[in-house]
Amino acid sequence: MSRTLWTGDDGVLRTIDQTALPFERRELALRTVDDCDRAIREMQVRGAPLIGAVGAYGLALALRVDASDGALRRAAERLAAARPTAVNLRWALDRVRERVAAAEPGLRAALAWDEAGRICDEDVACNASIGEQGARLLRALAEQRSVLAGVAGADALALNLLTHCNAGRIATVDHGTALAPIYLLHAEGVPVHVWVDETRPRNQGAALTAWELAERGVPHTVIADNAGGLLMMQGRVDAVIVGCDRVAANGDVANKVGTYLKALAAHDNGVPFYVACPVSTIDPATPDGASIPIEERSAREVTHVAGALDDGSRANLRVVPEGSAVANPAFDVTPARLVTALITERGICEASSAGLRAVLAAGSQ
Amino acid sequence: MSRTLWTGDDGVLRTIDQTALPFERRELALRTVDDCDRAIREMQVRGAPLIGAVGAYGLALALRVDASDGALRRAAERLAAARPTAVNLRWALDRVRERVAAAEPGLRAALAWDEAGRICDEDVACNASIGEQGARLLRALAEQRSVLAGVAGADALALNLLTHCNAGRIATVDHGTALAPIYLLHAEGVPVHVWVDETRPRNQGAALTAWELAERGVPHTVIADNAGGLLMMQGRVDAVIVGCDRVAANGDVANKVGTYLKALAAHDNGVPFYVACPVSTIDPATPDGASIPIEERSAREVTHVAGALDDGSRANLRVVPEGSAVANPAFDVTPARLVTALITERGICEASSAGLRAVLAAGSQ
Repeated sequence: MSRTLWTGDDGVLRTIDQTALPFERRELALRTVDDCDRAIREMQVRGAPLIGAVGAYGLALALRVDASDGALRRAAERLAAARPTAVNLRWALDRVRERVAAAEPGLRAALAWDEAGRICDEDVACNASIGEQGARLLRALAEQRSVLAGVAGADALALNLLTHCNAGRIATVDHGTALAPIYLLHAEGVPVHVWVDETRPRNQGAALTAWELAERGVPHTVIADNAGGLLMMQGRVDAVIVGCDRVAANGDVANKVGTYLKALAAHDNGVPFYVACPVSTIDPATPDGASIPIEERSAREVTHVAGALDDGSRANLRVVPEGSAVANPAFDVTPARLVTALITERGICEASSAGLRAVLAAGSQ
Repeated sequence: MSRTLWTGDDGVLRTIDQTALPFERRELALRTVDDCDRAIREMQVRGAPLIGAVGAYGLALALRVDASDGALRRAAERLAAARPTAVNLRWALDRVRERVAAAEPGLRAALAWDEAGRICDEDVACNASIGEQGARLLRALAEQRSVLAGVAGADALALNLLTHCNAGRIATVDHGTALAPIYLLHAEGVPVHVWVDETRPRNQGAALTAWELAERGVPHTVIADNAGGLLMMQGRVDAVIVGCDRVAANGDVANKVGTYLKALAAHDNGVPFYVACPVSTIDPATPDGASIPIEERSAREVTHVAGALDDGSRANLRVVPEGSAVANPAFDVTPARLVTALITERGICEASSAGLRAVLAAGSQ
């Protein structure tokens, strides 16, 4: 299976232009720091891990042209500004800078390229591990379904999972976070089916999650964000699994706006609600969800919808009248009490201070 | 204020073509039974009370051309088939037929026209009464806000209400149900502000509720359906008020899909959740929410979005990849335990068997 970011036989770094999805799989060559900067800025690549990896390669490409200290600093500052709130991007850029800082200019580009590759490999390994940890939980659910179906004399049905937004392969270098366990189960032959929340206003579910599940042949059904509560009440969802942007010290979770509503519905219907997150997402410096700043994004994301016309051309449609005000908070906070478990690369833990301390300590041993 | 259905000085019945909203206020002349049939069938008019009224006038217009028993029966059957699941439409057609049944053919058209007018007047009176009942609740909330603001030495802010879908003026002949109390408070000078759920997949909030609130100058903000939970958690919603399609005997409420998620968030944050409904919506024959059939609508409502291109022309965009399956349940069920109160034209009642019995008994005295 190919990664989201790869180097072809010609030595050129390539990725998928996510602004063309789901209607076209357009490959994007990243030959220069300009290409990387533009890809991040115009959201041709998105998802914290992937943005970080593209930024790291961008620094390496800049160093091929000018490996001086000044050029290094300028390229890093420029790339960091491409998505100013992306913490992972700064982290990746800092890592590359540290790696090359003491080296002679002539060696810097190669070292930076190597470090970018390590960042990618670590992301892939981290997500593979999240996949394995999560698969343990989902296999147990599938087994339970199978046993109950046996008791009822029925065939075992697919395990029905619901996800919100895109925490999949194309948000990372490979595997994804929330989708990693699903891909693993599907590869093992366990029948899975994914309810894909459209995820307004940017439609990452309909446009990206549906596309990548289709690409890997995972059965799925796209639904309006409004539908998930009914499906849970009808017993048609076995578990909810989402990614996250930040975990506070008390276990509260910030993720794409609308996640909280699905967590409430899961809790109300006895459906497990799992959050897949690399340990790097846990922020002990943030005491609780109320301390997490919520980014307000452009009104245009709500007033306009992107898609394809009948002739296949891309267009943007206005769906809100001109005179109406619009609010567009990008994230919401799911209280720890609604989270059944966190799935990290180091193991599964409770969404609580104690659970987070244990999983953080597990890594430092 | 004008009604949604009116007769001009030229004696011609007119309505607003809701398929052109929110981008154009296009008036539609209803001169024949064909015009009425088409308006209902193509959803140029929608909302149970308005559909019923247009059907009733359609029958009167048919009788102007041919007032025989056969023509009456054929016109009624044809109009009833225009929206087969609309119970209100059949009820209105039956009422007109009963009114004219014993009359001479020469008098029938005039009697039918009169009966259609009565149906409209009764709808307006019913909704005005829902408005007054609901306004009592909302005034009390506004007063509470004002007192608390006074204690804090701050200016009283607007009362923030959240609504889902369109249970407004243009779903009825006038006033609407959920929006009726809001219009009344606004007219009284009480500062109100409405959070308008976009209401995917058909976008009735963004397209219709926003339009009619703007037309009457009520401050409002359109949000993605995903945003309401966060707003409630942040204390930015004083009450949720929605309409409904059916109330079961135990107080469970069926309404536009996504309503249940907002009810959960309201409950989790101590925000009152009100359901405005004519008494005719209460169905003692349906024991509970689980007994309410949920209509599955066309996949195209999810795969495609309607709106306006930059040049103002209307278009439909595909937003879901071709190969992905889609599910589109139109309604969900909000359990009675999450409903703070029902607002009917006969008074406010608890969403419970006892509450419903009391409000039904109040009308039969």
